[in-house]
Amino acid sequence: MFRMKRIVEFGDTDMAGIVHFAQFFNYMEAVEHAFLRSLGFSVVMEWEGMRIGVPRVAASCEYLRPVRFEDEIEIVVSVKKLGRSSVTYCFEFFKDGAEIARGEITAVFCRMEHGAGMKAMEIPAALRGKLERGQP
Amino acid sequence: MFRMKRIVEFGDTDMAGIVHFAQFFNYMEAVEHAFLRSLGFSVVMEWEGMRIGVPRVAASCEYLRPVRFEDEIEIVVSVKKLGRSSVTYCFEFFKDGAEIARGEITAVFCRMEHGAGMKAMEIPAALRGKLERGQP
Amino acid sequence: MFRMKRIVEFGDTDMAGIVHFAQFFNYMEAVEHAFLRSLGFSVVMEWEGMRIGVPRVAASCEYLRPVRFEDEIEIVVSVKKLGRSSVTYCFEFFKDGAEIARGEITAVFCRMEHGAGMKAMEIPAALRGKLERGQP
Amino acid sequence: MFRMKRIVEFGDTDMAGIVHFAQFFNYMEAVEHAFLRSLGFSVVMEWEGMRIGVPRVAASCEYLRPVRFEDEIEIVVSVKKLGRSSVTYCFEFFKDGAEIARGEITAVFCRMEHGAGMKAMEIPAALRGKLERGQP
Repeated sequence: MFRMKRIVEFGDTDMAGIVHFAQFFNYMEAVEHAFLRSLGFSVVMEWEGMRIGVPRVAASCEYLRPVRFEDEIEIVVSVKKLGRSSVTYCFEFFKDGAEIARGEITAVFCRMEHGAGMKAMEIPAALRGKLERGQP
Repeated sequence: MFRMKRIVEFGDTDMAGIVHFAQFFNYMEAVEHAFLRSLGFSVVMEWEGMRIGVPRVAASCEYLRPVRFEDEIEIVVSVKKLGRSSVTYCFEFFKDGAEIARGEITAVFCRMEHGAGMKAMEIPAALRGKLERGQP
Repeated sequence: MFRMKRIVEFGDTDMAGIVHFAQFFNYMEAVEHAFLRSLGFSVVMEWEGMRIGVPRVAASCEYLRPVRFEDEIEIVVSVKKLGRSSVTYCFEFFKDGAEIARGEITAVFCRMEHGAGMKAMEIPAALRGKLERGQP
Repeated sequence: MFRMKRIVEFGDTDMAGIVHFAQFFNYMEAVEHAFLRSLGFSVVMEWEGMRIGVPRVAASCEYLRPVRFEDEIEIVVSVKKLGRSSVTYCFEFFKDGAEIARGEITAVFCRMEHGAGMKAMEIPAALRGKLERGQP
Protein backbone atom coordinates (compact mmCIF):
# COMPACT_ATOMS: atom_id res chain seq x y z
CA MET A 1 0.00 0.00 0.00
CA PHE A 2 1.23 3.43 -0.90
CA ARG A 3 -0.49 6.81 -0.66
CA MET A 4 0.09 10.16 -2.35
CA LYS A 5 -1.50 13.59 -2.08
CA ARG A 6 -2.20 15.80 -5.03
CA ILE A 7 -3.77 19.18 -5.74
CA VAL A 8 -6.31 19.34 -8.57
CA GLU A 9 -4.96 21.60 -11.30
CA PHE A 10 -6.98 23.96 -13.49
CA GLY A 11 -6.19 22.03 -16.65
CA ASP A 12 -7.64 18.88 -15.02
CA THR A 13 -11.12 20.41 -14.96
CA ASP A 14 -13.72 20.66 -17.71
CA MET A 15 -16.54 23.09 -18.41
CA ALA A 16 -18.78 21.30 -15.89
CA GLY A 17 -16.44 22.76 -13.27
CA ILE A 18 -15.21 19.37 -12.07
CA VAL A 19 -12.24 17.11 -12.80
CA HIS A 20 -12.67 15.54 -16.24
CA PHE A 21 -13.37 11.81 -15.88
CA ALA A 22 -10.45 10.74 -18.11
CA GLN A 23 -8.07 12.61 -15.86
CA PHE A 24 -8.57 10.11 -13.03
CA PHE A 25 -6.65 7.57 -15.12
CA ASN A 26 -3.68 9.91 -15.27
CA TYR A 27 -3.92 10.34 -11.50
CA MET A 28 -3.91 6.54 -11.04
CA GLU A 29 -0.91 6.11 -13.28
CA ALA A 30 1.06 8.80 -11.47
CA VAL A 31 0.44 7.00 -8.15
CA GLU A 32 1.29 3.60 -9.63
CA HIS A 33 4.62 4.98 -10.82
CA ALA A 34 5.38 6.71 -7.52
CA PHE A 35 4.59 3.40 -5.81
CA LEU A 36 7.03 1.54 -8.07
CA ARG A 37 9.68 4.20 -7.43
CA SER A 38 9.11 3.78 -3.68
CA LEU A 39 9.98 0.07 -4.21
CA GLY A 40 13.13 0.98 -6.11
CA PHE A 41 11.74 0.34 -9.59
CA SER A 42 10.72 2.45 -12.54
CA VAL A 43 8.04 1.63 -15.04
CA VAL A 44 10.63 2.14 -17.73
CA MET A 45 13.21 -0.31 -16.67
CA GLU A 46 16.02 -2.41 -17.96
CA TRP A 47 16.28 -5.93 -16.58
CA GLU A 48 19.28 -8.07 -17.47
CA GLY A 49 19.77 -6.02 -20.62
CA MET A 50 16.13 -6.06 -21.75
CA ARG A 51 13.86 -3.08 -21.96
CA ILE A 52 10.66 -3.71 -20.01
CA GLY A 53 7.32 -2.01 -20.42
CA VAL A 54 3.96 -2.45 -18.72
CA PRO A 55 1.16 -1.79 -21.20
CA ARG A 56 -2.33 -1.77 -19.74
CA VAL A 57 -4.89 -4.43 -20.62
CA ALA A 58 -7.74 -2.99 -18.56
CA ALA A 59 -8.61 0.17 -16.65
CA SER A 60 -11.78 1.25 -14.89
CA CYS A 61 -13.06 3.92 -12.56
CA GLU A 62 -16.18 4.59 -10.52
CA TYR A 63 -16.95 8.20 -9.70
CA LEU A 64 -18.65 8.76 -6.36
CA ARG A 65 -18.40 12.51 -5.75
CA PRO A 66 -17.32 15.46 -7.92
CA VAL A 67 -13.83 16.89 -7.36
CA ARG A 68 -12.95 20.49 -8.06
CA PHE A 69 -10.03 22.80 -8.81
CA GLU A 70 -7.56 23.14 -5.94
CA ASP A 71 -9.14 20.29 -3.98
CA GLU A 72 -6.47 18.30 -2.21
CA ILE A 73 -7.05 14.64 -2.87
CA GLU A 74 -5.32 11.58 -1.51
CA ILE A 75 -4.90 8.45 -3.61
CA VAL A 76 -4.14 5.05 -2.11
CA VAL A 77 -2.84 2.25 -4.31
CA SER A 78 -2.62 -1.42 -3.38
CA VAL A 79 -1.90 -4.61 -5.28
CA LYS A 80 -5.15 -6.49 -5.76
CA LYS A 81 -3.88 -9.42 -7.82
CA LEU A 82 -0.52 -10.68 -9.02
CA GLY A 83 -0.40 -13.06 -11.97
CA ARG A 84 2.61 -14.57 -13.68
CA SER A 85 3.02 -11.53 -15.94
CA SER A 86 0.27 -9.21 -14.84
CA VAL A 87 -0.53 -7.03 -11.89
CA THR A 88 -3.87 -5.47 -10.95
CA TYR A 89 -3.70 -2.32 -8.88
CA CYS A 90 -6.63 -0.99 -6.90
CA PHE A 91 -6.90 2.78 -6.32
CA GLU A 92 -9.01 4.67 -3.80
CA PHE A 93 -9.44 8.44 -4.00
CA PHE A 94 -10.28 10.49 -0.91
CA LYS A 95 -11.06 14.12 -0.19
CA ASP A 96 -11.44 15.28 3.40
CA GLY A 97 -11.72 11.65 4.48
CA ALA A 98 -14.63 10.84 2.13
CA GLU A 99 -14.13 8.47 -0.78
CA ILE A 100 -14.63 10.25 -4.09
CA ALA A 101 -13.63 7.57 -6.61
CA ARG A 102 -12.14 4.11 -6.91
CA GLY A 103 -10.46 2.46 -9.83
CA GLU A 104 -8.35 -0.39 -11.14
CA ILE A 105 -5.58 -0.84 -13.66
CA THR A 106 -4.31 -4.19 -14.93
CA ALA A 107 -0.90 -4.07 -16.59
CA VAL A 108 1.23 -6.78 -18.15
CA PHE A 109 5.01 -6.91 -17.90
CA CYS A 110 6.40 -7.08 -21.41
CA ARG A 111 9.76 -7.34 -23.06
CA MET A 112 9.82 -4.43 -25.54
CA GLU A 113 11.41 -5.68 -28.74
CA HIS A 114 12.74 -3.20 -31.22
CA GLY A 115 10.24 -2.65 -33.98
CA ALA A 116 8.89 -6.09 -33.12
CA GLY A 117 6.29 -5.13 -30.57
CA MET A 118 6.06 -6.47 -27.06
CA LYS A 119 5.92 -9.93 -25.53
CA ALA A 120 4.59 -10.84 -22.08
CA MET A 121 7.26 -11.96 -19.59
CA GLU A 122 7.35 -13.16 -16.01
CA ILE A 123 7.40 -10.36 -13.45
CA PRO A 124 11.05 -10.06 -12.33
CA ALA A 125 11.39 -11.93 -9.02
CA ALA A 126 12.83 -8.99 -7.07
CA LEU A 127 9.88 -6.81 -8.03
CA ARG A 128 7.34 -9.60 -7.45
CA GLY A 129 8.52 -9.99 -3.87
CA LYS A 130 8.11 -6.29 -3.24
CA LEU A 131 4.72 -6.14 -4.93
CA GLU A 132 3.56 -9.08 -2.78
CA ARG A 133 4.61 -7.28 0.37
CA GLY A 134 2.84 -4.20 -1.01
CA GLN A 135 -0.44 -6.11 -0.88
CA PRO A 136 -2.84 -4.97 1.82
CA MET B 1 -25.55 2.72 -33.19
CA PHE B 2 -23.23 5.36 -34.50
CA ARG B 3 -19.70 5.12 -35.87
CA MET B 4 -16.90 7.62 -36.30
CA LYS B 5 -13.42 7.50 -37.76
CA ARG B 6 -10.45 9.22 -36.24
CA ILE B 7 -6.73 9.56 -36.89
CA VAL B 8 -4.42 9.02 -33.92
CA GLU B 9 -2.59 12.26 -33.19
CA PHE B 10 1.00 12.62 -31.99
CA GLY B 11 -0.05 14.10 -28.66
CA ASP B 12 -2.21 11.00 -28.03
CA THR B 13 0.87 8.78 -27.83
CA ASP B 14 3.26 8.20 -24.95
CA MET B 15 6.91 7.20 -24.79
CA ALA B 16 6.01 3.55 -25.31
CA GLY B 17 5.13 4.63 -28.87
CA ILE B 18 1.45 3.75 -28.51
CA VAL B 19 -1.73 5.63 -27.66
CA HIS B 20 -1.75 6.44 -23.93
CA PHE B 21 -4.40 4.35 -22.17
CA ALA B 22 -6.20 7.35 -20.65
CA GLN B 23 -6.66 8.80 -24.13
CA PHE B 24 -9.17 6.09 -25.05
CA PHE B 25 -11.62 7.71 -22.63
CA ASN B 26 -11.35 10.99 -24.51
CA TYR B 27 -11.96 9.08 -27.76
CA MET B 28 -15.08 7.48 -26.24
CA GLU B 29 -16.43 10.80 -25.05
CA ALA B 30 -15.89 12.43 -28.45
CA VAL B 31 -17.91 9.65 -30.10
CA GLU B 32 -20.64 9.81 -27.43
CA HIS B 33 -21.04 13.53 -28.10
CA ALA B 34 -21.01 13.11 -31.88
CA PHE B 35 -23.69 10.44 -31.43
CA LEU B 36 -25.85 12.80 -29.35
CA ARG B 37 -25.37 15.55 -31.94
CA SER B 38 -26.48 13.08 -34.64
CA LEU B 39 -29.71 12.67 -32.63
CA GLY B 40 -30.16 16.44 -32.42
CA PHE B 41 -28.91 16.83 -28.84
CA SER B 42 -25.85 18.26 -27.18
CA VAL B 43 -24.31 17.09 -23.96
CA VAL B 44 -24.56 20.67 -22.74
CA MET B 45 -28.23 21.30 -23.15
CA GLU B 46 -31.03 23.38 -21.85
CA TRP B 47 -34.34 21.63 -21.32
CA GLU B 48 -37.42 23.66 -20.40
CA GLY B 49 -35.15 26.34 -18.98
CA MET B 50 -32.90 24.01 -16.97
CA ARG B 51 -29.25 23.41 -17.60
CA ILE B 52 -28.56 19.69 -17.99
CA GLY B 53 -25.26 17.89 -17.54
CA VAL B 54 -24.28 14.22 -17.75
CA PRO B 55 -21.51 13.48 -15.24
CA ARG B 56 -20.00 10.00 -15.46
CA VAL B 57 -20.46 7.45 -12.69
CA ALA B 58 -18.37 4.71 -14.26
CA ALA B 59 -15.95 4.23 -17.14
CA SER B 60 -13.87 1.26 -18.21
CA CYS B 61 -11.75 0.07 -21.09
CA GLU B 62 -10.10 -3.17 -22.19
CA TYR B 63 -7.09 -2.86 -24.44
CA LEU B 64 -6.67 -5.66 -26.97
CA ARG B 65 -4.00 -4.39 -29.37
CA PRO B 66 -1.65 -1.39 -29.38
CA VAL B 67 -2.59 1.60 -31.54
CA ARG B 68 -0.01 3.96 -33.00
CA PHE B 69 0.41 7.47 -34.37
CA GLU B 70 -1.49 8.11 -37.62
CA ASP B 71 -3.44 4.86 -37.33
CA GLU B 72 -6.97 5.36 -38.57
CA ILE B 73 -9.35 3.89 -36.05
CA GLU B 74 -13.09 3.48 -36.14
CA ILE B 75 -15.18 3.71 -33.00
CA VAL B 76 -18.70 2.33 -32.77
CA VAL B 77 -20.99 3.42 -29.94
CA SER B 78 -24.25 1.79 -28.95
CA VAL B 79 -26.62 2.14 -26.02
CA LYS B 80 -26.19 -0.86 -23.74
CA LYS B 81 -28.59 0.10 -20.98
CA LEU B 82 -31.10 2.88 -20.34
CA GLY B 83 -32.19 3.58 -16.78
CA ARG B 84 -34.54 6.25 -15.48
CA SER B 85 -31.70 8.80 -15.26
CA SER B 86 -28.70 6.92 -16.52
CA VAL B 87 -27.38 5.62 -19.79
CA THR B 88 -24.61 3.09 -20.37
CA TYR B 89 -22.82 3.35 -23.69
CA CYS B 90 -20.72 0.55 -25.13
CA PHE B 91 -17.79 1.40 -27.40
CA GLU B 92 -15.87 -0.82 -29.78
CA PHE B 93 -12.61 0.32 -31.38
CA PHE B 94 -11.42 -1.13 -34.68
CA LYS B 95 -8.33 -0.78 -36.85
CA ASP B 96 -8.23 -2.45 -40.27
CA GLY B 97 -11.24 -4.51 -39.26
CA ALA B 98 -9.64 -5.93 -36.09
CA GLU B 99 -10.95 -4.97 -32.67
CA ILE B 100 -8.32 -3.07 -30.71
CA ALA B 101 -10.25 -2.01 -27.61
CA ARG B 102 -13.70 -1.95 -26.08
CA GLY B 103 -15.08 0.23 -23.34
CA GLU B 104 -18.11 1.49 -21.46
CA ILE B 105 -19.25 4.77 -19.97
CA THR B 106 -22.21 5.18 -17.63
CA ALA B 107 -23.50 8.74 -17.31
CA VAL B 108 -26.35 10.22 -15.29
CA PHE B 109 -28.60 13.01 -16.52
CA CYS B 110 -28.49 15.79 -13.95
CA ARG B 111 -30.04 19.17 -13.42
CA MET B 112 -27.08 21.51 -12.86
CA GLU B 113 -28.02 23.89 -10.08
CA HIS B 114 -26.09 27.09 -9.69
CA GLY B 115 -23.49 26.68 -6.99
CA ALA B 116 -25.75 23.98 -5.59
CA GLY B 117 -24.28 21.01 -7.40
CA MET B 118 -26.21 18.55 -9.52
CA LYS B 119 -29.31 16.43 -9.02
CA ALA B 120 -30.27 13.34 -11.01
CA MET B 121 -33.31 13.81 -13.26
CA GLU B 122 -35.33 11.65 -15.63
CA ILE B 123 -33.87 11.45 -19.13
CA PRO B 124 -35.96 13.86 -21.25
CA ALA B 125 -38.57 11.79 -23.12
CA ALA B 126 -37.59 13.04 -26.58
CA LEU B 127 -34.01 11.99 -26.05
CA ARG B 128 -34.99 8.68 -24.40
CA GLY B 129 -36.96 7.70 -27.47
CA LYS B 130 -34.01 8.41 -29.72
CA LEU B 131 -31.55 6.63 -27.44
CA GLU B 132 -33.85 3.58 -27.42
CA ARG B 133 -33.92 3.51 -31.18
CA GLY B 134 -30.12 3.92 -31.07
CA GLN B 135 -29.87 0.58 -29.33
CA PRO B 136 -28.42 -2.20 -31.45
CA MET C 1 9.55 34.81 -7.40
CA PHE C 2 8.31 31.38 -6.56
CA ARG C 3 9.72 27.96 -7.37
CA MET C 4 8.24 24.49 -7.50
CA LYS C 5 9.59 21.01 -8.18
CA ARG C 6 7.81 18.43 -10.21
CA ILE C 7 8.40 14.90 -11.47
CA VAL C 8 7.70 14.24 -15.16
CA GLU C 9 4.86 11.75 -15.44
CA PHE C 10 4.49 9.02 -18.05
CA GLY C 11 1.38 10.61 -19.56
CA ASP C 12 3.36 13.83 -20.12
CA THR C 13 5.60 12.11 -22.66
CA ASP C 14 5.01 11.38 -26.33
CA MET C 15 6.31 8.70 -28.67
CA ALA C 16 9.54 10.65 -29.18
CA GLY C 17 10.30 9.66 -25.57
CA ILE C 18 10.31 13.24 -24.31
CA VAL C 19 7.81 15.57 -22.65
CA HIS C 20 5.24 16.69 -25.23
CA PHE C 21 5.72 20.37 -26.04
CA ALA C 22 2.13 21.35 -25.18
CA GLN C 23 2.59 19.90 -21.71
CA PHE C 24 4.98 22.70 -20.74
CA PHE C 25 2.02 25.09 -20.76
CA ASN C 26 0.23 22.93 -18.21
CA TYR C 27 3.41 22.94 -16.10
CA MET C 28 3.53 26.76 -16.29
CA GLU C 29 -0.09 27.11 -15.29
CA ALA C 30 0.33 24.78 -12.31
CA VAL C 31 3.23 26.91 -11.05
CA GLU C 32 1.33 30.17 -11.68
CA HIS C 33 -1.55 28.88 -9.56
CA ALA C 34 0.73 27.59 -6.80
CA PHE C 35 2.37 31.04 -6.80
CA LEU C 36 -1.01 32.76 -6.44
CA ARG C 37 -1.96 30.37 -3.64
CA SER C 38 1.35 31.21 -1.90
CA LEU C 39 0.19 34.86 -1.99
CA GLY C 40 -3.17 33.93 -0.50
CA PHE C 41 -5.13 34.05 -3.76
CA SER C 42 -6.74 31.54 -6.06
CA VAL C 43 -7.16 31.87 -9.78
CA VAL C 44 -10.84 31.21 -9.24
CA MET C 45 -11.70 33.95 -6.83
CA GLU C 46 -14.51 36.05 -5.62
CA TRP C 47 -13.77 39.71 -5.01
CA GLU C 48 -16.38 41.93 -3.39
CA GLY C 49 -19.09 39.57 -4.63
CA MET C 50 -17.81 39.27 -8.20
CA ARG C 51 -16.45 36.12 -9.79
CA ILE C 52 -13.00 36.76 -11.27
CA GLY C 53 -11.23 34.80 -13.98
CA VAL C 54 -7.87 35.24 -15.69
CA PRO C 55 -8.09 34.10 -19.32
CA ARG C 56 -4.82 34.02 -21.21
CA VAL C 57 -4.11 36.41 -24.10
CA ALA C 58 -0.67 35.06 -24.95
CA ALA C 59 1.56 32.11 -24.13
CA SER C 60 4.93 31.05 -25.47
CA CYS C 61 7.71 28.60 -24.75
CA GLU C 62 11.26 28.00 -25.96
CA TYR C 63 12.58 24.48 -25.63
CA LEU C 64 16.29 24.22 -24.91
CA ARG C 65 16.84 20.59 -23.93
CA PRO C 66 14.65 17.47 -23.98
CA VAL C 67 13.07 16.35 -20.72
CA ARG C 68 12.18 12.74 -20.01
CA PHE C 69 9.96 10.55 -17.85
CA GLU C 70 10.78 10.72 -14.14
CA ASP C 71 13.11 13.69 -14.56
CA GLU C 72 12.79 16.03 -11.61
CA ILE C 73 12.39 19.55 -12.93
CA GLU C 74 12.25 22.84 -11.11
CA ILE C 75 10.15 25.71 -12.41
CA VAL C 76 10.68 29.31 -11.32
CA VAL C 77 7.97 31.90 -11.94
CA SER C 78 8.38 35.65 -11.67
CA VAL C 79 6.23 38.63 -12.63
CA LYS C 80 7.70 40.23 -15.74
CA LYS C 81 5.13 42.95 -16.30
CA LEU C 82 2.07 44.29 -14.49
CA GLY C 83 -0.48 46.30 -16.45
CA ARG C 84 -3.74 47.78 -15.25
CA SER C 85 -5.62 44.51 -15.90
CA SER C 86 -2.94 42.19 -17.14
CA VAL C 87 0.03 40.33 -15.76
CA THR C 88 2.87 38.68 -17.67
CA TYR C 89 4.60 35.82 -15.90
CA CYS C 90 8.01 34.54 -16.89
CA PHE C 91 8.87 30.88 -16.30
CA GLU C 92 12.25 29.18 -16.25
CA PHE C 93 12.58 25.39 -16.24
CA PHE C 94 15.65 23.69 -14.82
CA LYS C 95 16.92 20.12 -14.57
CA ASP C 96 20.06 19.37 -12.59
CA GLY C 97 20.86 23.08 -12.62
CA ALA C 98 20.70 23.42 -16.43
CA GLU C 99 17.97 25.46 -18.06
CA ILE C 100 15.75 23.26 -20.21
CA ALA C 101 12.99 25.66 -21.23
CA ARG C 102 11.66 29.15 -20.66
CA GLY C 103 8.21 30.55 -21.26
CA GLU C 104 5.73 33.35 -20.72
CA ILE C 105 2.03 33.66 -20.06
CA THR C 106 0.05 36.90 -20.22
CA ALA C 107 -3.31 36.79 -18.48
CA VAL C 108 -6.01 39.42 -18.06
CA PHE C 109 -8.10 39.83 -14.91
CA CYS C 110 -11.74 39.68 -15.92
CA ARG C 111 -15.09 39.93 -14.26
CA MET C 112 -16.95 36.77 -15.29
CA GLU C 113 -20.51 37.74 -16.05
CA HIS C 114 -23.15 35.08 -16.12
CA GLY C 115 -23.80 34.02 -19.67
CA ALA C 116 -22.52 37.45 -20.69
CA GLY C 117 -18.88 36.62 -21.16
CA MET C 118 -15.99 38.37 -19.45
CA LYS C 119 -14.90 41.97 -19.08
CA ALA C 120 -11.40 43.20 -18.22
CA MET C 121 -11.10 44.78 -14.74
CA GLU C 122 -8.37 46.40 -12.71
CA ILE C 123 -6.21 43.93 -10.80
CA PRO C 124 -7.51 44.01 -7.19
CA ALA C 125 -5.18 46.30 -5.17
CA ALA C 126 -4.34 43.70 -2.52
CA LEU C 127 -3.19 41.24 -5.16
CA ARG C 128 -1.37 43.91 -7.18
CA GLY C 129 0.75 44.81 -4.17
CA LYS C 130 1.71 41.19 -3.65
CA LEU C 131 2.43 40.62 -7.34
CA GLU C 132 4.67 43.71 -7.34
CA ARG C 133 6.64 42.37 -4.41
CA GLY C 134 6.78 39.06 -6.28
CA GLN C 135 8.73 40.77 -9.05
CA PRO C 136 12.38 39.81 -9.19
CA MET D 1 -1.20 26.56 -47.11
CA PHE D 2 -3.46 23.90 -45.73
CA ARG D 3 -6.71 24.17 -43.79
CA MET D 4 -8.60 21.81 -41.51
CA LYS D 5 -11.87 21.97 -39.63
CA ARG D 6 -12.36 20.63 -36.16
CA ILE D 7 -15.10 20.45 -33.55
CA VAL D 8 -14.18 21.50 -30.01
CA GLU D 9 -14.51 18.49 -27.72
CA PHE D 10 -15.70 18.49 -24.12
CA GLY D 11 -12.34 17.37 -22.78
CA ASP D 12 -10.72 20.38 -24.51
CA THR D 13 -12.57 22.79 -22.21
CA ASP D 14 -11.76 23.89 -18.67
CA MET D 15 -13.91 25.10 -15.78
CA ALA D 16 -14.00 28.61 -17.26
CA GLY D 17 -16.22 27.07 -19.96
CA ILE D 18 -13.75 27.74 -22.76
CA VAL D 19 -11.04 25.79 -24.56
CA HIS D 20 -8.03 25.44 -22.25
CA PHE D 21 -5.15 27.56 -23.57
CA ALA D 22 -2.67 24.66 -23.71
CA GLN D 23 -5.05 22.77 -25.98
CA PHE D 24 -4.44 25.19 -28.86
CA PHE D 25 -0.93 23.72 -29.16
CA ASN D 26 -2.40 20.26 -29.66
CA TYR D 27 -4.71 21.72 -32.32
CA MET D 28 -1.72 23.30 -34.10
CA GLU D 29 0.24 20.08 -34.05
CA ALA D 30 -2.68 18.08 -35.45
CA VAL D 31 -2.93 20.51 -38.38
CA GLU D 32 0.84 20.51 -38.93
CA HIS D 33 0.77 16.73 -39.19
CA ALA D 34 -2.26 16.67 -41.47
CA PHE D 35 -0.44 19.23 -43.65
CA LEU D 36 2.65 17.00 -43.83
CA ARG D 37 0.48 13.99 -44.67
CA SER D 38 -1.16 16.03 -47.45
CA LEU D 39 2.38 16.49 -48.88
CA GLY D 40 3.04 12.76 -48.64
CA PHE D 41 5.15 12.88 -45.48
CA SER D 42 4.71 11.84 -41.89
CA VAL D 43 6.26 13.50 -38.90
CA VAL D 44 7.58 10.09 -37.92
CA MET D 45 9.52 9.21 -40.99
CA GLU D 46 12.36 7.11 -42.19
CA TRP D 47 14.70 8.72 -44.70
CA GLU D 48 17.43 6.64 -46.33
CA GLY D 49 17.32 4.27 -43.37
CA MET D 50 17.42 6.96 -40.67
CA ARG D 51 14.66 7.71 -38.22
CA ILE D 52 13.73 11.39 -38.38
CA GLY D 53 11.99 13.43 -35.71
CA VAL D 54 10.99 17.08 -35.51
CA PRO D 55 11.25 18.29 -31.91
CA ARG D 56 9.97 21.79 -31.28
CA VAL D 57 12.30 24.63 -30.29
CA ALA D 58 9.61 27.29 -29.91
CA ALA D 59 5.83 27.57 -29.75
CA SER D 60 3.56 30.51 -29.11
CA CYS D 61 -0.10 31.48 -29.28
CA GLU D 62 -2.16 34.64 -29.01
CA TYR D 63 -5.75 34.25 -27.91
CA LEU D 64 -8.17 36.74 -29.44
CA ARG D 65 -11.63 35.36 -28.60
CA PRO D 66 -12.87 32.53 -26.38
CA VAL D 67 -13.84 29.25 -28.04
CA ARG D 68 -16.41 26.89 -26.59
CA PHE D 69 -17.55 23.27 -26.64
CA GLU D 70 -18.93 22.13 -29.99
CA ASP D 71 -17.73 25.27 -31.77
CA GLU D 72 -16.56 24.40 -35.25
CA ILE D 73 -13.19 26.01 -35.81
CA GLU D 74 -11.03 26.19 -38.89
CA ILE D 75 -7.25 26.22 -38.65
CA VAL D 76 -5.01 27.40 -41.47
CA VAL D 77 -1.32 26.51 -41.47
CA SER D 78 1.35 28.05 -43.68
CA VAL D 79 5.13 27.91 -43.76
CA LYS D 80 6.49 31.18 -42.45
CA LYS D 81 10.19 30.42 -42.58
CA LEU D 82 12.38 27.60 -43.84
CA GLY D 83 15.91 27.27 -42.50
CA ARG D 84 18.53 24.65 -43.28
CA SER D 85 17.15 22.30 -40.59
CA SER D 86 14.21 24.20 -39.17
CA VAL D 87 10.73 25.18 -40.25
CA THR D 88 8.45 27.78 -38.69
CA TYR D 89 4.74 27.24 -39.21
CA CYS D 90 2.16 29.95 -38.76
CA PHE D 91 -1.36 29.01 -37.65
CA GLU D 92 -4.57 31.04 -37.83
CA PHE D 93 -7.72 29.91 -36.05
CA PHE D 94 -11.15 31.01 -37.25
CA LYS D 95 -14.72 30.59 -36.05
CA ASP D 96 -17.59 31.84 -38.20
CA GLY D 97 -15.10 33.83 -40.25
CA ALA D 98 -13.64 35.72 -37.26
CA GLU D 99 -10.08 35.10 -36.16
CA ILE D 100 -9.99 33.62 -32.67
CA ALA D 101 -6.29 32.83 -32.24
CA ARG D 102 -2.99 32.74 -34.03
CA GLY D 103 0.15 30.84 -33.24
CA GLU D 104 3.56 29.63 -34.37
CA ILE D 105 5.62 26.49 -33.99
CA THR D 106 9.30 26.17 -34.90
CA ALA D 107 10.54 22.61 -35.30
CA VAL D 108 13.96 21.22 -36.19
CA PHE D 109 14.51 18.17 -38.34
CA CYS D 110 16.66 15.73 -36.39
CA ARG D 111 18.21 12.37 -36.89
CA MET D 112 17.01 10.30 -33.93
CA GLU D 113 19.92 8.22 -32.73
CA HIS D 114 19.30 5.21 -30.55
CA GLY D 115 19.82 6.12 -26.95
CA ALA D 116 22.12 8.85 -28.21
CA GLY D 117 19.62 11.65 -28.49
CA MET D 118 18.96 13.70 -31.60
CA LYS D 119 21.10 15.66 -34.01
CA ALA D 120 19.92 18.42 -36.36
CA MET D 121 19.99 17.50 -40.06
CA GLU D 122 19.21 19.23 -43.35
CA ILE D 123 15.54 19.09 -44.31
CA PRO D 124 15.25 16.30 -46.93
CA ALA D 125 15.22 17.96 -50.38
CA ALA D 126 11.96 16.37 -51.51
CA LEU D 127 10.15 17.71 -48.46
CA ARG D 128 11.86 21.10 -48.65
CA GLY D 129 10.53 21.61 -52.18
CA LYS D 130 7.01 20.81 -51.07
CA LEU D 131 7.23 22.99 -47.98
CA GLU D 132 8.46 25.89 -50.16
CA ARG D 133 5.50 25.51 -52.45
CA GLY D 134 3.33 25.34 -49.34
CA GLN D 135 4.38 28.86 -48.47
CA PRO D 136 1.68 31.49 -48.88
